[in-house]
Amino acid sequence: MNGRKVFEKISALGYGAALFFDEVNMHYISGFFSTDGFLLVSKEETALVIDSRYFEAASRAKADGLLFEDVNLYLLDRSTFRILGEMFEKQGITNVCFDSERTTVAREKALSEFFPSVKFEGVSDICGEFRRVKTAREVENIRAAQRITDKAFLHVLNFIRPGVTEKEVAAELEYAMRKNGADGFAFETIAVSGKNSSLPHGVPSDTVLTENAFLTMDFGARYNGYCSDMTRTVVLGKADEKTKHIYETVLEAQKRGIAAAKAGVDGASVDAAARDYINACGYEGKFGHSLGHSLGLEIHESPRFSSRSTDIFVPGNIMTVEPGIYIEGFGGCRIEDMVLITENGCENLTNSPKELIEL
Amino acid sequence: MNGRKVFEKISALGYGAALFFDEVNMHYISGFFSTDGFLLVSKEETALVIDSRYFEAASRAKADGLLFEDVNLYLLDRSTFRILGEMFEKQGITNVCFDSERTTVAREKALSEFFPSVKFEGVSDICGEFRRVKTAREVENIRAAQRITDKAFLHVLNFIRPGVTEKEVAAELEYAMRKNGADGFAFETIAVSGKNSSLPHGVPSDTVLTENAFLTMDFGARYNGYCSDMTRTVVLGKADEKTKHIYETVLEAQKRGIAAAKAGVDGASVDAAARDYINACGYEGKFGHSLGHSLGLEIHESPRFSSRSTDIFVPGNIMTVEPGIYIEGFGGCRIEDMVLITENGCENLTNSPKELIEL
Repeated sequence: MNGRKVFEKISALGYGAALFFDEVNMHYISGFFSTDGFLLVSKEETALVIDSRYFEAASRAKADGLLFEDVNLYLLDRSTFRILGEMFEKQGITNVCFDSERTTVAREKALSEFFPSVKFEGVSDICGEFRRVKTAREVENIRAAQRITDKAFLHVLNFIRPGVTEKEVAAELEYAMRKNGADGFAFETIAVSGKNSSLPHGVPSDTVLTENAFLTMDFGARYNGYCSDMTRTVVLGKADEKTKHIYETVLEAQKRGIAAAKAGVDGASVDAAARDYINACGYEGKFGHSLGHSLGLEIHESPRFSSRSTDIFVPGNIMTVEPGIYIEGFGGCRIEDMVLITENGCENLTNSPKELIEL
Repeated sequence: MNGRKVFEKISALGYGAALFFDEVNMHYISGFFSTDGFLLVSKEETALVIDSRYFEAASRAKADGLLFEDVNLYLLDRSTFRILGEMFEKQGITNVCFDSERTTVAREKALSEFFPSVKFEGVSDICGEFRRVKTAREVENIRAAQRITDKAFLHVLNFIRPGVTEKEVAAELEYAMRKNGADGFAFETIAVSGKNSSLPHGVPSDTVLTENAFLTMDFGARYNGYCSDMTRTVVLGKADEKTKHIYETVLEAQKRGIAAAKAGVDGASVDAAARDYINACGYEGKFGHSLGHSLGLEIHESPRFSSRSTDIFVPGNIMTVEPGIYIEGFGGCRIEDMVLITENGCENLTNSPKELIEL
């Protein structure tokens, strides 16, 4: 019943309705994913208006109880503005808010011009405060996505061997996620080897895996719309001392980050728990990104673990913990788990081994 | 040198610079893909400002000549607004435009508040007019993406058999695209069978393929950032008369659409060439979506083939032609090729067979 939570919020702010055009808010509020159409939350209803490409699927989802109860489905069979105008008129709506972080300047202008008697105003990240805390159903979907991801990692360990390319590793991870039930992928799979592994967001290439060097794999499944996200770094062959030192430093930093993650702490202190250790080990400046992010229907959500984060954590937040060390011309290593924040600590949702694996 | 084309356009409109935060414009103007950072086009330069996750990869791309020549790379090592403020000041920029269809209301507000002495204004789809007409390099990338997609289709024909699920078909298509060199996928793979095939945008499920019924597969690869897009519908087992009639109607409609596509025509007449045939065969109302769309860095771009399209086509447009017939409770069929508009017709970039295949 996310539509009712949204209505309660926006009516307290003085609005008669909230209007959404972006897929994420539409999915969150209705329980149904579509790339087009719109959603209107008002006192009377939560109206999901979608075109014929999605309508039958949404009708089935409604019949199967997969839509939230307050959602009414409408076919987008005339122009968006015409249908919207009828809804405004019928329900006497004159004051509408939209999500200012997910609505374009062009859309606002078009709405204001087409409906001169309706007042439109932006509200920042309308659903954000709800989406930060995952419901039991959301946690289950993320758990399921991560189970798929863990299985893919175990599978790929048997596939990695000399002569294989980065792209082949990515292909194998995705295939294994699909075979284990993924609806799709949470983001573009990363598989980078040797010197390429110093690129935190590198794109898998046709490069054959470098032996006796890092292979970093960052991948995630999508399940019922929800994302998982994990990273493991392994060594094809034998790790030398420098490689081992980097790996062990990242691993210890990651464990310290996880140990610091619990309800009541702020995002900067969790980030510092991992970052300070990396810096103290002689890698200052080599961990260039932040420690972690929340995720859910999107792969990057708030709250965050970062040096500037003032987020205070509460039970039900799901966070990645993913420190890394990246040395240009040598390579890089990242280790990432997902954790569910609890009252006294956190539960690790990732069940793959993370001691150094030499293959 | 897309940055220079953009500067020429926006300076003629009276702006000193154009500011982009969205991945598509940033990619199009710089030649490099990143999910974060910003790009500023001014008289002096095209500045791509990205964080440490992307900086090394972008530096390599620049060294390899993969960035456009006018692009200067900067590390996003301080806040975005601080770096931006320094650029405005140093270059004397006081009048900046942004893409109103790809900039959020929140972003415009933040910019205007932070820089009270700079004027910000939205311009609709700044790069759109350039992106509609593909360069030789872009056509080559789309051709390469389609070659991969064609190979995946041939591969999956040997995989489809009784007992296989929709998700397994999707997995196999993606695996084959990856194995044949895809950097990723152009969109979420569709594989829908039997009654599910009446859902034009259905999500592959764990349903075992229905025998003697339609299996529709809509899939595409991504190569150097560029998308391909094709759909084939096959029958596992034998097609009955109704199934055959639907298939042959869609195929003939698709051929008529392709025959109508050429420079100088408008989008509505190409749509009508296919739609009128489907309607005349007794399927009025069963082809609910438009006939086709352009594609490139994005899977859906302008111009369009649709009943309301006033787009006039020119050589260098790349379009999908994808009619379908969808009958709730029975199933659906769609056939889709990509074509390159030429002076006197179009070149079909899709090389897979499209006569009815019974497996």
